[in-house]
Amino acid sequence: MEVTRALARFIVGHDRRELPESVRHEAARSFLNWMGCAVGACRHETVERALAALAEFSGPGHATVLGRGERLDAMLAALVNGASSHVFDFDDTHLKTVIHPSGPVASAILALAEKMPVRGDAFLHAFVLGVEAECRIGNAVYPEHYDTGWHITATAGVFGAAAAAGRLLGLSEQQMVWALGIAATQSSGLREMFGTMAKPMHPGFAARNGMLAALLAARDFTSSNRGIEAPRGFAHVLSTAFKPGEITARLGETWEISLNTYKPYACGIVEHPAIDGCIQLRNEHGLKPADVESIALGVHPLALELTGRKAPRTGLEGKFSVYHSTAVAVIHGAAGEAQYGDALVRDPEVIALRERVSAAVEPGIHEDQVRIRMQLRDGRTLERFVEHAVGSLGKPMSDADLEAKFRGQVEGILARPQAGALARLCWDIGRLEDAGEVARASVPARAVRNPRPTIAGERR
Amino acid sequence: MEVTRALARFIVGHDRRELPESVRHEAARSFLNWMGCAVGACRHETVERALAALAEFSGPGHATVLGRGERLDAMLAALVNGASSHVFDFDDTHLKTVIHPSGPVASAILALAEKMPVRGDAFLHAFVLGVEAECRIGNAVYPEHYDTGWHITATAGVFGAAAAAGRLLGLSEQQMVWALGIAATQSSGLREMFGTMAKPMHPGFAARNGMLAALLAARDFTSSNRGIEAPRGFAHVLSTAFKPGEITARLGETWEISLNTYKPYACGIVEHPAIDGCIQLRNEHGLKPADVESIALGVHPLALELTGRKAPRTGLEGKFSVYHSTAVAVIHGAAGEAQYGDALVRDPEVIALRERVSAAVEPGIHEDQVRIRMQLRDGRTLERFVEHAVGSLGKPMSDADLEAKFRGQVEGILARPQAGALARLCWDIGRLEDAGEVARASVPARAVRNPRPTIAGERR
Repeated sequence: MEVTRALARFIVGHDRRELPESVRHEAARSFLNWMGCAVGACRHETVERALAALAEFSGPGHATVLGRGERLDAMLAALVNGASSHVFDFDDTHLKTVIHPSGPVASAILALAEKMPVRGDAFLHAFVLGVEAECRIGNAVYPEHYDTGWHITATAGVFGAAAAAGRLLGLSEQQMVWALGIAATQSSGLREMFGTMAKPMHPGFAARNGMLAALLAARDFTSSNRGIEAPRGFAHVLSTAFKPGEITARLGETWEISLNTYKPYACGIVEHPAIDGCIQLRNEHGLKPADVESIALGVHPLALELTGRKAPRTGLEGKFSVYHSTAVAVIHGAAGEAQYGDALVRDPEVIALRERVSAAVEPGIHEDQVRIRMQLRDGRTLERFVEHAVGSLGKPMSDADLEAKFRGQVEGILARPQAGALARLCWDIGRLEDAGEVARASVPARAVRNPRPTIAGERR
Repeated sequence: MEVTRALARFIVGHDRRELPESVRHEAARSFLNWMGCAVGACRHETVERALAALAEFSGPGHATVLGRGERLDAMLAALVNGASSHVFDFDDTHLKTVIHPSGPVASAILALAEKMPVRGDAFLHAFVLGVEAECRIGNAVYPEHYDTGWHITATAGVFGAAAAAGRLLGLSEQQMVWALGIAATQSSGLREMFGTMAKPMHPGFAARNGMLAALLAARDFTSSNRGIEAPRGFAHVLSTAFKPGEITARLGETWEISLNTYKPYACGIVEHPAIDGCIQLRNEHGLKPADVESIALGVHPLALELTGRKAPRTGLEGKFSVYHSTAVAVIHGAAGEAQYGDALVRDPEVIALRERVSAAVEPGIHEDQVRIRMQLRDGRTLERFVEHAVGSLGKPMSDADLEAKFRGQVEGILARPQAGALARLCWDIGRLEDAGEVARASVPARAVRNPRPTIAGERR
């Protein structure tokens, strides 16, 4: 089966009038959430260091560094904004594949939309098609591909960026086949980088590399016609299993973006059930840290595999520690960016409680579930089974939740009225005359009184 | 074992005075050969299309597009020059791994040497260290990694570029560890792209991505400390076997660049024994195509796997056809770029002879060997066993051969006196005050009277 060609044909041929309204709305939710992530992290040292290293290589200032205002060429802007949007691990999640879909796609096409005229409806359509491409490719190789050690957001994301950018560039079917092939041969990103600055670069690389694939293909730069399915193509080289039907079946009838979810907490999604349950118990019983003797978590295996750090040393490492996350949930009743600062990870009270948290795999438990047994010092035992963590498909964040999250994220970067205006533009992205307007609207109109400090608190 | 750290420590700590003279000389040979390849292909449509797509994204004109003179930012120049140097498949080969070592490394650091002051001795040293890093990493995963479908020139090359650029940037040991990690997470490039324009982009991507890794690390941008050897690092994710000792044993005592070879023919190295033997028989017996009834080749399995195209349709595909290569060797007594033009691949005389060539795996035969049985129409049978093809380690090209190859490559781009001057600069690269001078010396001082046509002959 010609998988790459079938996908290319769909991407270039789909009529945007056939996009259901619910899909458009979910795309706007995804876009708003992505924008909040990118703006919220724009002063983080990961972004600062990337800009310090790379800005001097920038071409003409086609596009905006979100939340900051420096202008970079569109490829470099895509890279930096893609990185910014993933720094806090607070972006969206396609739960079937653990892909964070918006980063690679939105970062690529928003930068492109500042370089060339792109109407909002075309932008939203390309965004949905890009997410569709990357998530279907992810579905076709998940979980074996991920289990091999690939960061699927990066490896599948490059296809999404190529598809979306290629659609905006008006590629022919053959050019789109080539673009997907050039994406395939750049597909990279190792899970080994989790917990380091290199991880958030992955969606940035995917965005830039996917855009580059589309730009080359637009000039009839050739690649394989079977970049995805050939014996030495993406699927067989980067995965031990491949289900091509996941890419080609019911194209245009189902939409992967409808399965997108948003994180209420600024850490790995597999920790969310534990945080959710601990915040519930804390609030219901008015718990203080000193009340808690021990906490035993029954979790899905991935929670230990991905977030099993017993003794994190930095805020970034704290995001990969279900022990730290559980401790701050009890102490602060929250798990936002503030709970993942370096100082808090080293705080004696947090460390003391963290060391009283244990976690073990509980057979049969799902990824968005947890069983919590909290032993109190007064002799009581509290139990909580979380059926669906907040933010999961079974208990999605509402539009109001998402906007509140957005406002919390951009606080300290944008003054409140501007944050509201930016949120409105994101909700309206599909109706704008000029999609690139949103990027420029993310630049602070004036200095904010209490700028958010660099999270890790190191030299700037 | 801390493989990544051991390699990083070696790269940042090695004293260039300990580089044997023979190693320096081999490095100059490699550099000259690489330069000839890059200049020779600089007007090829692959380069034209890449520039058409990407030049408008270029930052300040730090560095030269070799043989042409456009100036691009150093990262983009590294990408374009790396691609140019591989377009004709005429670059160097580390036979143990089939890595083409110079492309990723030289393309990165020559562009860097135009952006910052780099003395020739430091340049040559960094070049040798970069080649050492990529080839040792290649040795550690070859052949399993290659057999999986990875284009090892790209996947290992990114480490070489990071190592060499990082050495010139003066990275600390820890920064070099990070640079190798950022390289690891960008490692990509599929053999599926062979025979398309995407293939020569691979060393270009490796050069640019490796340089970017070093630039980020210089700003303390973190990555894994075990990017190569961790369970989810490069070696285990991209290969089914890993021999870490190949990276760490006898560092500074042996030099992989000493094992580098150069192609006398403009096609896949596994075809060279057949070409060499057929040219010998042709010249010894004064053969004309019409004299030949049939040619039967006994070859190494890779010759069929890599160059088994029975009916190539383009010059590029012709490079991957041992049948075409054998035919032109008999007809023209040569296998240079001229023998891989689109027109020649479609020439009836070439097709007629090509169809009389057969090839089969001969057990026990090595990659640089072939057994040729040529049946003539007059009833005679000619046999030739090629023990070592010209250009192999057993029968290396001399310095004079290399310079003749260089002059043939740059003919049509540079006038003869300038070609000579550029060759001298390449031989002297280790003694120049300013290594970047070589790049500028590759730009035609005046229009050449008979510019080489675009090989594929398509629209420009």
